[in-house]
Amino acid sequence: MLNVGVIGAAGYTGETLVDILLNHPHSRIAYLCRKTDASLPIQEIFPKFKNRIDLVCNKLNIKDVISKCDTVFLALPHTASMEIAAKLLKAGLRVIDLSADYRLQDVAVYEKYYGVKHTDKINLKKAVYGLPELYRNKIKTAQLVANPGCYPTAAILALAPLVALNLTALDSIIIDAKSGVSGAGKKIAEGFLFTEIDEDFKAYKVNIHQHMPEINAFLSKLAGKKIQVSFVPHLLPINRGILETIYVQKSQKSKVKGQSLVALYKKFYKNEPFIRIKAEGSYPRIKDVSGTNFCDIGIEDFGDKIIIIVAIDNLLKGASGQAVQNMNIMHKFPETAGLL
Amino acid sequence: MLNVGVIGAAGYTGETLVDILLNHPHSRIAYLCRKTDASLPIQEIFPKFKNRIDLVCNKLNIKDVISKCDTVFLALPHTASMEIAAKLLKAGLRVIDLSADYRLQDVAVYEKYYGVKHTDKINLKKAVYGLPELYRNKIKTAQLVANPGCYPTAAILALAPLVALNLTALDSIIIDAKSGVSGAGKKIAEGFLFTEIDEDFKAYKVNIHQHMPEINAFLSKLAGKKIQVSFVPHLLPINRGILETIYVQKSQKSKVKGQSLVALYKKFYKNEPFIRIKAEGSYPRIKDVSGTNFCDIGIEDFGDKIIIIVAIDNLLKGASGQAVQNMNIMHKFPETAGLL
Amino acid sequence: MLNVGVIGAAGYTGETLVDILLNHPHSRIAYLCRKTDASLPIQEIFPKFKNRIDLVCNKLNIKDVISKCDTVFLALPHTASMEIAAKLLKAGLRVIDLSADYRLQDVAVYEKYYGVKHTDKINLKKAVYGLPELYRNKIKTAQLVANPGCYPTAAILALAPLVALNLTALDSIIIDAKSGVSGAGKKIAEGFLFTEIDEDFKAYKVNIHQHMPEINAFLSKLAGKKIQVSFVPHLLPINRGILETIYVQKSQKSKVKGQSLVALYKKFYKNEPFIRIKAEGSYPRIKDVSGTNFCDIGIEDFGDKIIIIVAIDNLLKGASGQAVQNMNIMHKFPETAGLL
Amino acid sequence: MLNVGVIGAAGYTGETLVDILLNHPHSRIAYLCRKTDASLPIQEIFPKFKNRIDLVCNKLNIKDVISKCDTVFLALPHTASMEIAAKLLKAGLRVIDLSADYRLQDVAVYEKYYGVKHTDKINLKKAVYGLPELYRNKIKTAQLVANPGCYPTAAILALAPLVALNLTALDSIIIDAKSGVSGAGKKIAEGFLFTEIDEDFKAYKVNIHQHMPEINAFLSKLAGKKIQVSFVPHLLPINRGILETIYVQKSQKSKVKGQSLVALYKKFYKNEPFIRIKAEGSYPRIKDVSGTNFCDIGIEDFGDKIIIIVAIDNLLKGASGQAVQNMNIMHKFPETAGLL
Repeated sequence: MLNVGVIGAAGYTGETLVDILLNHPHSRIAYLCRKTDASLPIQEIFPKFKNRIDLVCNKLNIKDVISKCDTVFLALPHTASMEIAAKLLKAGLRVIDLSADYRLQDVAVYEKYYGVKHTDKINLKKAVYGLPELYRNKIKTAQLVANPGCYPTAAILALAPLVALNLTALDSIIIDAKSGVSGAGKKIAEGFLFTEIDEDFKAYKVNIHQHMPEINAFLSKLAGKKIQVSFVPHLLPINRGILETIYVQKSQKSKVKGQSLVALYKKFYKNEPFIRIKAEGSYPRIKDVSGTNFCDIGIEDFGDKIIIIVAIDNLLKGASGQAVQNMNIMHKFPETAGLL
Repeated sequence: MLNVGVIGAAGYTGETLVDILLNHPHSRIAYLCRKTDASLPIQEIFPKFKNRIDLVCNKLNIKDVISKCDTVFLALPHTASMEIAAKLLKAGLRVIDLSADYRLQDVAVYEKYYGVKHTDKINLKKAVYGLPELYRNKIKTAQLVANPGCYPTAAILALAPLVALNLTALDSIIIDAKSGVSGAGKKIAEGFLFTEIDEDFKAYKVNIHQHMPEINAFLSKLAGKKIQVSFVPHLLPINRGILETIYVQKSQKSKVKGQSLVALYKKFYKNEPFIRIKAEGSYPRIKDVSGTNFCDIGIEDFGDKIIIIVAIDNLLKGASGQAVQNMNIMHKFPETAGLL
Repeated sequence: MLNVGVIGAAGYTGETLVDILLNHPHSRIAYLCRKTDASLPIQEIFPKFKNRIDLVCNKLNIKDVISKCDTVFLALPHTASMEIAAKLLKAGLRVIDLSADYRLQDVAVYEKYYGVKHTDKINLKKAVYGLPELYRNKIKTAQLVANPGCYPTAAILALAPLVALNLTALDSIIIDAKSGVSGAGKKIAEGFLFTEIDEDFKAYKVNIHQHMPEINAFLSKLAGKKIQVSFVPHLLPINRGILETIYVQKSQKSKVKGQSLVALYKKFYKNEPFIRIKAEGSYPRIKDVSGTNFCDIGIEDFGDKIIIIVAIDNLLKGASGQAVQNMNIMHKFPETAGLL
Repeated sequence: MLNVGVIGAAGYTGETLVDILLNHPHSRIAYLCRKTDASLPIQEIFPKFKNRIDLVCNKLNIKDVISKCDTVFLALPHTASMEIAAKLLKAGLRVIDLSADYRLQDVAVYEKYYGVKHTDKINLKKAVYGLPELYRNKIKTAQLVANPGCYPTAAILALAPLVALNLTALDSIIIDAKSGVSGAGKKIAEGFLFTEIDEDFKAYKVNIHQHMPEINAFLSKLAGKKIQVSFVPHLLPINRGILETIYVQKSQKSKVKGQSLVALYKKFYKNEPFIRIKAEGSYPRIKDVSGTNFCDIGIEDFGDKIIIIVAIDNLLKGASGQAVQNMNIMHKFPETAGLL
């Protein structure tokens, strides 16, 4: 059994990690902590875990983490991860970071969008972007995995086949994204009150969201050319789930020929356990992926334009589920262990 | 036109008052303020009011209030009203207070349930409880009206006929109350986040809620004997609306005879514009009263037991709508002006 | 007082019409009916109307309509309106039709998208499209007004300034639309059950929705050239409200110069009582327009691209509110009567 | 591996059974069917199951069921189960029936509340009521288990300690119950549309619900005396979950002494894996049990009165989860297999 720790167990991604790990056949939760606050049994923080786990959620103590864990999940806000990851890595632990701290190789972009200095450039260089469908081989041997953001996971998986095969006009990509509220974490602010969100819907951070450069970076890498998407996120009055509707222009030269886009996508993702391509004329909905680690993709050809619709659960494939998928890959467990 | 002011215009009851007063035929909003914070046009605080009103929401200045207004609504949390009301009353203004500060004549009970000292006992004595269906005559001439709490409005209206006619065993009353989230005001706390309330339902302050002594006080007054109800409030995952399911034992002596309870209720409330008694076997639902100042009551006889179901909109009949109804009565406007 | 009738009073748009008309200062509801079904007091169909109106909702009788009404609202599904409108028009009544039957001048397009024959081409030619911001003058004297669809109202108002001023590449318009469930009417089908929609979000009729040709037709008319938009509607788990996020490429020739897009929009709509243009960097949300007849528009310039966000209440500005606005114009009442 | 069948796989309880059984370590789904309709892969009926199961949901064929299954779940509406169960039992299969057909030993009561004749009285006599916490020993050897209703599961578990120990006045029990919409099954009717339930809350079948006699029957059995509860169910605007607030008078003779009610409840349920008793002053909420097979109970002593609050997931402990718990007991699997 692998001994794992969860740093930041009291937030939504931490809670979801605990939930998954409690049913994982090859790992056991060896350590739980919150960065600050006093120690408290995890089942008092989350009464839902009573009778399932009996473990104290400590105040963070790095030595304890190192002595008790082989692999550690950092379920922390950005900045907080940088402070801790280096110490764990130095002690030889493997780290899966759910924050944004190790996702963007371009430090200037990170500092612009997150508004803080990056203080661990050395480990940043070694970090592997934890999107298994594109980087599985690197993840296998990575010591530090940067678990992707929720919006980027959906967007990159939805666009990867088109971009990799050079089928899209690179300046034409528009991502209209809609997310459930848990995507924002447990933020205690007026804008996240029930009374403010219930029966409402709105866009926010229009074309300036911090996930946009993450999408740009990994699509550009895939294309071998610079890609700059338009990205408008919206807040759905639901708890969890992301659906993105993506519009692209076909590229001039390489029109799709001889096969449908659906067939092309099915081929691109043919051995992927968590990618499900919808049949022609059929589209994803959040309900089908909610509570699962699946990513559902629907795609349709409208002459010069292509419309792609993609759905994931932001707390699972968009965060904690994908983190466990990465752990499975890193430790040669079956990739779906604990996730189906 | 009556010149009215709203102190505390940035909360949910303040917002609702502005909304009603903008369509009121006999009054005009002469002054808006928040207790603290800088001045800001009300249409910037609530973009929904743009094109309907062009008025600045000031930082509170008592002199301004006195010079501009005839009647003032205090849409404030408890304690805050006590500090202001005395000054306005002294200057001859009429005051409708939506807080709890002037509802309970028994100071000891107030201090126990609200955890603060009462600092304006003189005006407390003069305050009239603003439940028009029971105290219309006193409201007409009141200088200070204590607008009832939302739960008590529903509970007292639902029970008044039975209690007044001595038809219920006084120690048997059980009130199982359910409220939408706006009933709690704009409280920025983890428990009121969308993610915490959506798809959830729970009881809170079981038999210790501060509205319980208010219900007890006014039912006891009506009965001429001490009544102590059981009261369990619950939080509904909706924005507005209260529904209470009330269980009582019939009293030994005075069984209902010769007429149905529905007929008895219809008679008791026969000239009330905002009370609607449901037909036999038919019950209120929140949707029918939401956005209205109505109070719907359904009642049924089950042998020894009576079950009453009552619904109101907590922000209207349970707060701001009733406050305007009181204003109408105080100024001899048609009682339904601005409210139908 | 104008005598008005509502044909189809039991659906959501009919219910909303009754609600508005009950507070209208210059008209009175003279006749209510459902197309089929037995007569029933409207307050039994909608208990929320009790104490506000006491009128029977009849089974449709054309003679009664003609004898009692000056102006009639048809709150009916498509096809049903065609059968009735001709008779009312012939009798000299003025008709505001909320169905799609008289919106599309191109009969072939109507028949393709609605799947039925058009049986009243004569009146179709005389029908005026009831979007007051563009066709106010024609509406004044129209005998038959075709009230616009909910999605088209938002889309056309959001795009009209850009299209009219030739600022957009005509083949580049993408409309990502999200609507509350009442937009579908009171359709009793598995897909509209609470359990299917709650906590879900999905696209439907991707690029094939019947409102797309309506948008195309009126934008093309405005541009004097053929416009073909991409249009993807989605279903929001809320009761009412539409928000559309619109992406356009700027046209080559006529770049916006010397003034911001916000200023340009403010100028275009400067005397419109129901259009509100958001300040730079600020965007509409459904909560601000819900329960109102307003249309809120936010617009931003992103180099080659423009992003426009627009919100309306689908039952008001998107249906019944706009219908009453049209009635006000037709009868020279103040345009906002009953609507603010 | 045990071969199990699910008859009625297309409803909500059928869907939930498939979901649980796919992760069950000791059983495999050998047969799925819908009572009527054509054959269809289950992953087409529920796209969420794609990549998890590849099995056709057939039109019911009794011979197939018998040849392929050892144990069968009937996830059917009442009446439908009676027609099928007898055949399966005769063939030696073990049956867990989720309908109401075998719950009430008193045929007259069944026929009164369900409005149909009971056609299988022979098997009714042999049926064991599948509430493991009270009838575990009988369930072990039962051939036919009548899986309890959702409301009764919560109510009986909440009241069993008080009733068994004779601590409550038998005529005083009031159950105010609130349920998510999935409790009604996939009923396609106006009352279950999203637009009707969203932002609403209401009581229904006040004191006449068909689950009331089930509660009465099993509480009476426990007490050895006739118990008649008051029972008012309400519809919550959420997908799943039940919370019941229960009010009882203490019995005259046997006042609780020497220990708290919480301690008494903890002792009564001390070895139960799915019952969690809340600490003093702490109460259940639906979120803590949603998606789990737990039953959370909070209890408090208020002088003469006791208030008990209980919460379960209506589709799990209230239906399919409890059905699998029963299967585990019948086949000597660990009782929590597939359920934690």
